[in-house]
Amino acid sequence: MNETVQLLLNHRSVRKLKDEPLSPDVIRTLVEAAQMASTSSFVQAYSIMGITDRPKKEALAKLAGNQPYVAENGHFFVFCADFHRHIQAGEMEQTEVKPAVESAEKMIVAVTDAALAAQNCSIAAESMGLGICYIGGLRNNIAEVSNLLQLPNYVIPLFGLAVGVPEADPDRKPRLPVEGVYFENVYPDAEVHAEQLKAYNDTISAYYKERTGGSRSDRWTEQVSGLLKDVKRPHMKQFLEDKGYNRH
Amino acid sequence: MNETVQLLLNHRSVRKLKDEPLSPDVIRTLVEAAQMASTSSFVQAYSIMGITDRPKKEALAKLAGNQPYVAENGHFFVFCADFHRHIQAGEMEQTEVKPAVESAEKMIVAVTDAALAAQNCSIAAESMGLGICYIGGLRNNIAEVSNLLQLPNYVIPLFGLAVGVPEADPDRKPRLPVEGVYFENVYPDAEVHAEQLKAYNDTISAYYKERTGGSRSDRWTEQVSGLLKDVKRPHMKQFLEDKGYNRH
Repeated sequence: MNETVQLLLNHRSVRKLKDEPLSPDVIRTLVEAAQMASTSSFVQAYSIMGITDRPKKEALAKLAGNQPYVAENGHFFVFCADFHRHIQAGEMEQTEVKPAVESAEKMIVAVTDAALAAQNCSIAAESMGLGICYIGGLRNNIAEVSNLLQLPNYVIPLFGLAVGVPEADPDRKPRLPVEGVYFENVYPDAEVHAEQLKAYNDTISAYYKERTGGSRSDRWTEQVSGLLKDVKRPHMKQFLEDKGYNRH
Repeated sequence: MNETVQLLLNHRSVRKLKDEPLSPDVIRTLVEAAQMASTSSFVQAYSIMGITDRPKKEALAKLAGNQPYVAENGHFFVFCADFHRHIQAGEMEQTEVKPAVESAEKMIVAVTDAALAAQNCSIAAESMGLGICYIGGLRNNIAEVSNLLQLPNYVIPLFGLAVGVPEADPDRKPRLPVEGVYFENVYPDAEVHAEQLKAYNDTISAYYKERTGGSRSDRWTEQVSGLLKDVKRPHMKQFLEDKGYNRH
């Protein structure tokens, strides 16, 4: 197994990072690595914000639900879906591109493009011995985040990425069994899923038991049901439409 | 610069792959690498289909707009947004999770999760000397693709990923300038974008001129305007809603 595969298999999210800025060279390399990810039809439909301003980082940490590692880290990125520059490109070429950009299809494109880039950035960081943590909590108060970063229409702050020297070494969390996620040729029926979910519940219960000396033994199905019993971030659909995405 | 960063910076999509199946061990490692990507609140909201059945691969190649590398490759994956197993988890736990799953927020979660996993899979493949190419063309006829793979509600085939031994060595395509994609603290105004777009147009024109002995000299703004002048895949919004996504 080569070094890169080992690195990928060894991932864990790190929620305690040294509060010491990364060098501009490192940041540039991370952005360049992000940019080399595949992009749908070469549209490159994303932007990457880097937050270095201390009050802004503190404000983001608060907006993300008081997550201290949003403020305390080596660097904080915000990955954005971005068709703003394509609207501008259309103006330069006297072409009306808004109807296409405003389609649900192009939202899928932009979210995918941004995520592929972010994952390259994460892996580059981890290959340098840095720790990373994605921050979906930015969507808790997405309009406020958008205002704080002065994002115009056609730019959506999707998630943050905290990067820095790790100050914790969390456990590697076991994923769903391969047989519960990967299927050949035909999607399996409910019984197959039920079997995999039960096996996985045992794995996850054992994982928590071992970590907590027996005080926690959550099932995965219990965790995700708890997480999904309430509608979170009900503002997302309206926000997307307001910003020019997902309109038709 | 370490080996992994070099690998990331050296990416190119390969559209000619050897038609020789990858070994089950390699496929398993690629899936395991995919699974270790970060996932929002540990929901793991995706599935990975592997297509080994020849007639199915041929059918997908046709549905994707006659792209031969969908059928001819070492392995063909389809990455799907998937909250189907969470609905099942909810049933196991007597919890109603559909209202949350059907929100636009959870569509963003599932698309992001699937893309992060796919990018890990791609990087693992490239680290083994394999070539990869993402196939967004599956969304051209997404309902037919969904039927072919017998995907139930709450499963969306987002894109394919062809993997295999490369039979071509395409050029590395220059991305937007770092200064046109990465911004610190504040999103820049239109003049900054215009400047970056002009510089990038020169880069891309030079790239095509050199590759074609002068017969092509497309500007990037011209390419993306051409691509975005028509609404493509206008069925996406309805399809997403029909399958239980993006409803509110």
